[in-house]
Amino acid sequence: MDTASLGLDTASLGLDAASLGSAMYDLITELYPICRSITGDGVRKSLKILQQHIPLEIHEVPSGTPVFDWTVPKEWNIRDAYIKDATGKKVVDFQESNLHVLNYSLPIHKKMPLSELKEHLFSMPDRPDWIPYRTSYYNENWGFCLTDNTLKSLPDGEYEAYIDSSFKDGSLTYGELFLPGQTTDEILLFCHDCHPSLCNDNLSGVSLVTFLAKHLSQQSRRYSYRFVFAPATIGAITWLSCNEHKVANIKHGLTVANVGDPGHLTYKKSRRGNADIDRVVPHILKHSAPNHEIIDFSPYGYDERQFCSPGFNLPIGSLTRSQFGTFPEYHTSADNLDFVQPSSLVNSFETYLSVIDVLEHNHTYLNTNPKCEPQLGKRGLYSVYGGKQTAPEDRMAMLWVLNLSDGEHTLFDIAEQANLSFAIIKNAAFRLANSGLLKVCPSVVPQ
Amino acid sequence: MDTASLGLDTASLGLDAASLGSAMYDLITELYPICRSITGDGVRKSLKILQQHIPLEIHEVPSGTPVFDWTVPKEWNIRDAYIKDATGKKVVDFQESNLHVLNYSLPIHKKMPLSELKEHLFSMPDRPDWIPYRTSYYNENWGFCLTDNTLKSLPDGEYEAYIDSSFKDGSLTYGELFLPGQTTDEILLFCHDCHPSLCNDNLSGVSLVTFLAKHLSQQSRRYSYRFVFAPATIGAITWLSCNEHKVANIKHGLTVANVGDPGHLTYKKSRRGNADIDRVVPHILKHSAPNHEIIDFSPYGYDERQFCSPGFNLPIGSLTRSQFGTFPEYHTSADNLDFVQPSSLVNSFETYLSVIDVLEHNHTYLNTNPKCEPQLGKRGLYSVYGGKQTAPEDRMAMLWVLNLSDGEHTLFDIAEQANLSFAIIKNAAFRLANSGLLKVCPSVVPQ
Amino acid sequence: MDTASLGLDTASLGLDAASLGSAMYDLITELYPICRSITGDGVRKSLKILQQHIPLEIHEVPSGTPVFDWTVPKEWNIRDAYIKDATGKKVVDFQESNLHVLNYSLPIHKKMPLSELKEHLFSMPDRPDWIPYRTSYYNENWGFCLTDNTLKSLPDGEYEAYIDSSFKDGSLTYGELFLPGQTTDEILLFCHDCHPSLCNDNLSGVSLVTFLAKHLSQQSRRYSYRFVFAPATIGAITWLSCNEHKVANIKHGLTVANVGDPGHLTYKKSRRGNADIDRVVPHILKHSAPNHEIIDFSPYGYDERQFCSPGFNLPIGSLTRSQFGTFPEYHTSADNLDFVQPSSLVNSFETYLSVIDVLEHNHTYLNTNPKCEPQLGKRGLYSVYGGKQTAPEDRMAMLWVLNLSDGEHTLFDIAEQANLSFAIIKNAAFRLANSGLLKVCPSVVPQ
Repeated sequence: MDTASLGLDTASLGLDAASLGSAMYDLITELYPICRSITGDGVRKSLKILQQHIPLEIHEVPSGTPVFDWTVPKEWNIRDAYIKDATGKKVVDFQESNLHVLNYSLPIHKKMPLSELKEHLFSMPDRPDWIPYRTSYYNENWGFCLTDNTLKSLPDGEYEAYIDSSFKDGSLTYGELFLPGQTTDEILLFCHDCHPSLCNDNLSGVSLVTFLAKHLSQQSRRYSYRFVFAPATIGAITWLSCNEHKVANIKHGLTVANVGDPGHLTYKKSRRGNADIDRVVPHILKHSAPNHEIIDFSPYGYDERQFCSPGFNLPIGSLTRSQFGTFPEYHTSADNLDFVQPSSLVNSFETYLSVIDVLEHNHTYLNTNPKCEPQLGKRGLYSVYGGKQTAPEDRMAMLWVLNLSDGEHTLFDIAEQANLSFAIIKNAAFRLANSGLLKVCPSVVPQ
Repeated sequence: MDTASLGLDTASLGLDAASLGSAMYDLITELYPICRSITGDGVRKSLKILQQHIPLEIHEVPSGTPVFDWTVPKEWNIRDAYIKDATGKKVVDFQESNLHVLNYSLPIHKKMPLSELKEHLFSMPDRPDWIPYRTSYYNENWGFCLTDNTLKSLPDGEYEAYIDSSFKDGSLTYGELFLPGQTTDEILLFCHDCHPSLCNDNLSGVSLVTFLAKHLSQQSRRYSYRFVFAPATIGAITWLSCNEHKVANIKHGLTVANVGDPGHLTYKKSRRGNADIDRVVPHILKHSAPNHEIIDFSPYGYDERQFCSPGFNLPIGSLTRSQFGTFPEYHTSADNLDFVQPSSLVNSFETYLSVIDVLEHNHTYLNTNPKCEPQLGKRGLYSVYGGKQTAPEDRMAMLWVLNLSDGEHTLFDIAEQANLSFAIIKNAAFRLANSGLLKVCPSVVPQ
Repeated sequence: MDTASLGLDTASLGLDAASLGSAMYDLITELYPICRSITGDGVRKSLKILQQHIPLEIHEVPSGTPVFDWTVPKEWNIRDAYIKDATGKKVVDFQESNLHVLNYSLPIHKKMPLSELKEHLFSMPDRPDWIPYRTSYYNENWGFCLTDNTLKSLPDGEYEAYIDSSFKDGSLTYGELFLPGQTTDEILLFCHDCHPSLCNDNLSGVSLVTFLAKHLSQQSRRYSYRFVFAPATIGAITWLSCNEHKVANIKHGLTVANVGDPGHLTYKKSRRGNADIDRVVPHILKHSAPNHEIIDFSPYGYDERQFCSPGFNLPIGSLTRSQFGTFPEYHTSADNLDFVQPSSLVNSFETYLSVIDVLEHNHTYLNTNPKCEPQLGKRGLYSVYGGKQTAPEDRMAMLWVLNLSDGEHTLFDIAEQANLSFAIIKNAAFRLANSGLLKVCPSVVPQ
């Protein structure tokens, strides 16, 4: 993957791509075996692992807490589950894959004939080797997920279904890290962390947000940043309910998911459709990702659904690689450690950083010499006969910045109009500002 | 023709498509033989037939009445007309087809050689079997229209031209029906009724408007409706001149013509180009008519020319099947009872009703639970494991209605943004309103 | 080249295309041998020749005058230059082509070996028969330009380089003609006149502007016109600096260059992108030039760069044939008298005049009979049976003008909406105004 034209690549950041990719992948590997759900010890254990990388604050919201139209559910925990055949042999075993249990299953321990058991078995006839991932959060039920090959191999007879799970008053757990910047304006990065052994959806997002937070904590920041790790839907709703007073500061945001697969990058716009984030992400993708997709907001998908509900309408889009539901591995046992790749994780990481780079540096300047062009040559800014060449693209970038720095165009506006990458425009602006040909626009001084 | 995805089909209306098609076609059959013109007894007789279906009010505007830049002309009536050859044989006979006479011909009774007669004969060399339809309203003249085959078969010699017509002070006649609704805002449906034996143009429009009026008279109506049957151009000008004080109430309107031919539906936008009617008709056609055409306003066509003159600029477009002048049968004897079809008439009728359905039900709602999504499952609105399935399209429609019911989007706006038919969005809104999740937006309560 | 659909062709102007083409070409021929630069006697001599055609006022701005960020340079003049080989034979001779000298070369008279000389020689290896055109205005240097064939044929040995040029305090010279019109609003036509023996760039522009000024001086004018002949870049900057108080009157303008080559017409928009000139030129090209190109503004090109700098932001685009830098002959000895053609010059001239015709006649009218259509027939404006036919396009044009003459649409707006040429719409408006059906809109009476 060529990231040369990206605003930021790992090299320019002083990072080693291979090390970063390994580190992100290793974190996924560590989190993979844990059985997570929307509540319970799996999420808690996962967040503790993240705390080894970033100083995450962990919040517990008690079962029964009303959160808008919803209620925080009882806490679910599971210790073991299996199906034994008539000979006592385990034909389905939670210890082998936590996907085998319908997530949020009631406890059960009962013998029954295959015909009765089958009403609680889920498989994928079109992918006979894969175990589907199924949940039943709000309908009390129990069940097992298994490969269709296994299902078809079960002889008639009596089976023992055993699920050692518990539903108890407890809490919903989420993790949050806030990095203050020069301003109180915030950028929110939100990932769901409730899926069990599924890598792309969404351990990849969890890992990327962790490493992004780690990196940004070491940088000077104009914006403040908030990183949230919470269960999907009920977690986002709970977070919004508990943090409603904070959302006014959120100026830009992304929900982070599916960032490790080999597919192309996909940006889904916020409900506003024309928020800064809705212009910046497509710009970065246009200049760095030959294949990518931009899709309009729809009220279906990840937790942008909640952030973009009409009562919030936040400028939050979703930047993924393959879109949910569009790849066969989605919500199956094939979304495993083979499906995510360090190189994809690194490319996603760089893309997120490039987006942040635009937001951080999108200033508005004034041309100090607005009548006619200034004489670049006498300042060493123009390619001169025999002298050091300025690349044609950099020269055009300087001319564009000078021409449009009238107080009404941000650097990003200029990049869009010039059809040049923000990185090139930003560099041109820096050179011009250093030569005294630009000054920061007083009416829009970055805070 | 598949009308399944239309908002309204005859079945949903409790109508039988076959019966409706027959009834519309029968009315055309009854009106077909009458010789109509822009004034005279033909129009009067036609309107009396319509009164058997709807309580039409008939208006007479005296000859000589100034109507804007025009004057109501003398009344023209015709009893008989023919051309006899030297042997006394009728070679052209008004009794066989009223198209044989140049409409608005002066009376004449004179013998003359073929060479002189030919200056008053009109045929179509490229359609040698068809009689053309010609008029001479504002240039005093007389003439006959005949097939080119007949014209070519006429031997030299003396002919007797006889037209028993009269021009006298009389009146211009138009019919009008007003159906009051819950509001004084009006929808205008206007058709020209001045053509003699021509079926598509415009007995089809006359029949459709009659049956639409009949149907709507039996419905509860938010809007008031006005149905006008008048001669083309001078009739529309006369109606506008006599009813200028009424036009402020007209919020939407259509000129109705050519609705019985087998061609695809065509919508010509109003002069405004972005009136509600200009958005609603294309929406209905997009979702129900795989082949259709949308054309921009131009100051040529049917009586939208008058309604869209700059002094009125009313939101009135034109919804036809084949556009005037684009089909060979246009203004010829081939626009006969074979050219119009009951199935086309029914499809046009359903399309008009679907448009009206949008206008009647295009309310604005408020999501009563605007912060985050409401929990649809606990209200039985979400597809649930083992329960009654909500179709995916209906689920998406509910999510869209919830997401955009912020007081700034009508249901129609939502349908457009969701790229779903208004009918599906309307049904979703009804379900949500019944569950208490929507309420009518107070600031835009339908009157 | 078919100019039938142009608003203005030479015939309609009472001009003979062949004579005009010859006259424009002859002027180029006369100017061709002169060695021009951004200062010096070459420009003075050229402007004196133009004074034989138009009463140009000649301005001298002293060396050292500060002009915005720049300074008027010392005046450069050259009398002779050559390279002699060891045998004393001139291998490069300024008298044969003034392109042979690097424009603005320092004087030199020195013998040196070929290796040293080569650092001052410029050729085009990919066009071995052509002499390139090179300048070094702001870096003190000397040099020769020659064909690559000559360069390759030079044997090793000692050469005598001789350039008899001078740099002295003097002045920068520009020519200007102002033609007052009924209003003080101005149209600016600007051409650069600093290139030596190069025909398309830009003796073609110099010639076109001269003949345009000559023609317009004999016409009645609503607008005032200003024609400027000045060196590129420093000349435009100097003119703007000296005439800053005048620019508020400039309502439309074009930089004129490359108007004699056989390529298609190209319009580069002003920085505003939506100025009148940015709509009018594309309209004329759409209706008269089957092949043409419209390009967005960019801060690179001709002197629109200065006029469109943010401190001026004037509504000035650039109308050329082939765009600078896109044709191989650009800035080489191949841009000679064979490269420009009388027919191209005439076509460019007609295009400029058609643009001016729109600007001059783009009035706003009011339909005096705005309610319904007026009766055109009784005024002889409609095609009538047996009478004089009005062409269908002219009839549509009249209907469009009547329909849109509501005080909110100029004739140009109407032409665009009707998709008819301005010429046809203008003619329709004249006929309607003559019949009393239009009057000039009082609120926007042309001054």
